[in-house]
Amino acid sequence: MNFIEQSNNSRRGHSRCEFSKKAAHAKLTIGKASATIQPPQPKTPDRMVPHLTTALTGPLLYLEQHILDNQAAIEHWFRGRWLRHNAPFYASVDLRNAGFKLAPVDTNLFPGGFNNLNPDFLPLCVQATMSAVEKICPVAQRFLLIPENHTRNTFYLSNVAALSAILRQAGMNVRIGSLLPEITAATRLDLPNGATLTLEPVKRVDDRLVLDDFEPCAILLNNDLSAGIPEILKNLEQFVIPPLHAGWATRRKSNHFAAYNRVAEDFAKLLHIDPWLINPFFAQCGHIDFQERQGEECVAAHVDDMLQDIAEKYREYGVEQDPFVIVKADAGTYGMGIMTVKDASEVKGLNRKQRNKMAVIKEGQPVSEVIVQEGVYTFENLNGAVAEPVVYMIDHFVVGGFYRVHTGRGQDENLNAPGMRFEPLAFQTACTLPDCSAAPDTAPNRFYAYGVVARLALLAAALELEDTEAAD
Amino acid sequence: MNFIEQSNNSRRGHSRCEFSKKAAHAKLTIGKASATIQPPQPKTPDRMVPHLTTALTGPLLYLEQHILDNQAAIEHWFRGRWLRHNAPFYASVDLRNAGFKLAPVDTNLFPGGFNNLNPDFLPLCVQATMSAVEKICPVAQRFLLIPENHTRNTFYLSNVAALSAILRQAGMNVRIGSLLPEITAATRLDLPNGATLTLEPVKRVDDRLVLDDFEPCAILLNNDLSAGIPEILKNLEQFVIPPLHAGWATRRKSNHFAAYNRVAEDFAKLLHIDPWLINPFFAQCGHIDFQERQGEECVAAHVDDMLQDIAEKYREYGVEQDPFVIVKADAGTYGMGIMTVKDASEVKGLNRKQRNKMAVIKEGQPVSEVIVQEGVYTFENLNGAVAEPVVYMIDHFVVGGFYRVHTGRGQDENLNAPGMRFEPLAFQTACTLPDCSAAPDTAPNRFYAYGVVARLALLAAALELEDTEAAD
Repeated sequence: MNFIEQSNNSRRGHSRCEFSKKAAHAKLTIGKASATIQPPQPKTPDRMVPHLTTALTGPLLYLEQHILDNQAAIEHWFRGRWLRHNAPFYASVDLRNAGFKLAPVDTNLFPGGFNNLNPDFLPLCVQATMSAVEKICPVAQRFLLIPENHTRNTFYLSNVAALSAILRQAGMNVRIGSLLPEITAATRLDLPNGATLTLEPVKRVDDRLVLDDFEPCAILLNNDLSAGIPEILKNLEQFVIPPLHAGWATRRKSNHFAAYNRVAEDFAKLLHIDPWLINPFFAQCGHIDFQERQGEECVAAHVDDMLQDIAEKYREYGVEQDPFVIVKADAGTYGMGIMTVKDASEVKGLNRKQRNKMAVIKEGQPVSEVIVQEGVYTFENLNGAVAEPVVYMIDHFVVGGFYRVHTGRGQDENLNAPGMRFEPLAFQTACTLPDCSAAPDTAPNRFYAYGVVARLALLAAALELEDTEAAD
Repeated sequence: MNFIEQSNNSRRGHSRCEFSKKAAHAKLTIGKASATIQPPQPKTPDRMVPHLTTALTGPLLYLEQHILDNQAAIEHWFRGRWLRHNAPFYASVDLRNAGFKLAPVDTNLFPGGFNNLNPDFLPLCVQATMSAVEKICPVAQRFLLIPENHTRNTFYLSNVAALSAILRQAGMNVRIGSLLPEITAATRLDLPNGATLTLEPVKRVDDRLVLDDFEPCAILLNNDLSAGIPEILKNLEQFVIPPLHAGWATRRKSNHFAAYNRVAEDFAKLLHIDPWLINPFFAQCGHIDFQERQGEECVAAHVDDMLQDIAEKYREYGVEQDPFVIVKADAGTYGMGIMTVKDASEVKGLNRKQRNKMAVIKEGQPVSEVIVQEGVYTFENLNGAVAEPVVYMIDHFVVGGFYRVHTGRGQDENLNAPGMRFEPLAFQTACTLPDCSAAPDTAPNRFYAYGVVARLALLAAALELEDTEAAD
């Protein structure tokens, strides 16, 4: 008994996408409501639930359509939320689109990859950066950008250059300060496009970070602090953006997804949909030591429960694929310490290689907490290659995105893995311009839906940072 | 003795456009400082003052270059101003670019012409609209747009359609309410692009404006109230944007340019330039009756004084053209009631046709106050046709612009005149992305300078509205 009620909001005034109502007739029919409070409904016809493997070419995508139909209500809802919560300075969100389900699987508060965005949307980045700076530190004029400690990863350095350019266009004086001990003087690094990037050694003078001849008003971190919070960054009197507790030294995915549960619940009420359509199940296990085989039972038990929960949902929605879950480090990034599991037994019989893979993440940090997260199939593909959308936001504005397109990986695997090579495919159009005269899976409409779900994850990050700030 | 001192602000940190310093050596040399407080300076070499007729193809444009060099300081300055002053919801500013001088000549607080903007920058409009709505009326979801009382001007109707689309994409439910008595039921009007626009009759219920089945939270005026403030709009409890005192029923150009004097003075101090480079002289005359030849002496006296002041400036900067002034109605728009004057005698010997032309403006309103404004040559041209830039802003963000290109008019004439036909030429690039590796007169750099000067006029409008609100 699957349906989405027509939102009350879309009844008021003119509907955004009127064509769609005609196409779908009176009631859209994906989603879920509890059988105990709803009168019996006729079984959803097959055409109302797009067959998964045809998600890109098959019938209308009703979740996306429903999001399109409720654009005014959704934007109004977001406006209200952003009055009460401060968006992070910037973020990127990895999404997975299974056609019937569109969900965030990772939210990065120190996004790389700005060089992968469509250059046509640079003005959007600049405008959003102006908004962000006005809110967070309007008096700041000189920004010190602190990147990751990479000097040879030219992809990453190109991101730093792109980010610096955005900040400069927004009217900041920007210089790049490195935490690397080997950077003892201004060091020019060559970029693939022929440009150069200058890293300078950061010095601490009392409670301020400075470079030679440069007294920044604000520090923008593009370093996720996986290795812990360096002493030099602690107790600064300058603005530090994002705050230190947004770094992986303290951040936990489980806090993020706990906040996302609340956001998804609220949003699902607004749209009268089953929150599961935008929210993957998750659970957390602490006290893990993969090398010592400690904590495997907790993981196995959660995996088992979750696979059953997903199977039930799949039955309800007529999904024929096998459920799977992702086990990954609760702190950390770069897709290290990640495995795809389809049976609880898989996490108990790990061989040495698998244990080694799971035991440490970036910067050699040991993994002692993991989250078990529902796996969401990605059914978007480009010329046979799996494609995963990544959406970029500055302040609370969606400023672009790209697809990670990877031929060597399956629909149920993580696409952001160590050593992995992907081709970035920039979104062609902005995420704010749905086209009501086109089908819901055309690029502008698909991107609008991506932008909405990514902003839900951004809102969750805002709540998460409020919670963890209070706990500091 | 003409020079611009290198701004202190550009000395701190890295300069935006470092190449330019090399090109211009230590000191840029346009602008002015008082001879009484400055030691004697060598006469500016000719190459430092671009010859007017070669403004587009000749030597570097130093005013634009100087603006580019100081981008960080300028954006910082604006951020500080927008913390203290509320930008109007939207505005367009007519600029004139004489190469040596770049100045606003008209600021429209009810801009038409959104249909002339480059559609590539629609996302910028949408993002800026989201910002504007968040600030002014975050709870609003349903917008009533009240356009001018045109039903046959398809150019204008296309603007209304473009504006509605922007508001919809920003997540508003938008309907269009007409003040025309003949609109007694929903009326569909055809647009040149094949789309339609529906005008609906506005009704007042107590202190609220409504349409059938539509209770708007906010009223967006795209009607400049030239004919006075209609009773139906007075004392509404809904948000009215822009406020009624922004309409020509009460607004005066002289208030705007008085505020602009203050803004230009401050900005010129920041950049160490002569404010005249961005500010046209103006003066005001009241108690005018062109038909009765009343008040001509006031106008003639101001014209005479101003032509002498301009001539002095032209001598100082080596400008060889004839000074001219514009006489126009202090209230009103659409370029009615405007004349170009090169000698005071011209305003005293008006023939009947000229008097008729000057005596009334839009909606047949009589002209009783005029402003005399320094004429600024426009030396931009496209295939021999004169081109005047118009910059569009939503909230305090520049969202695009276009050129009015008109073959039948001179460099010293107003290009926004009744019955005038112009070809709009949308700006190719955004106004926020100067390219430091390119010459100052390439499109992105030129547009950045336009965006800066247009925002100065926008800031003046903010001050003006504060002043006139207090006077209400």
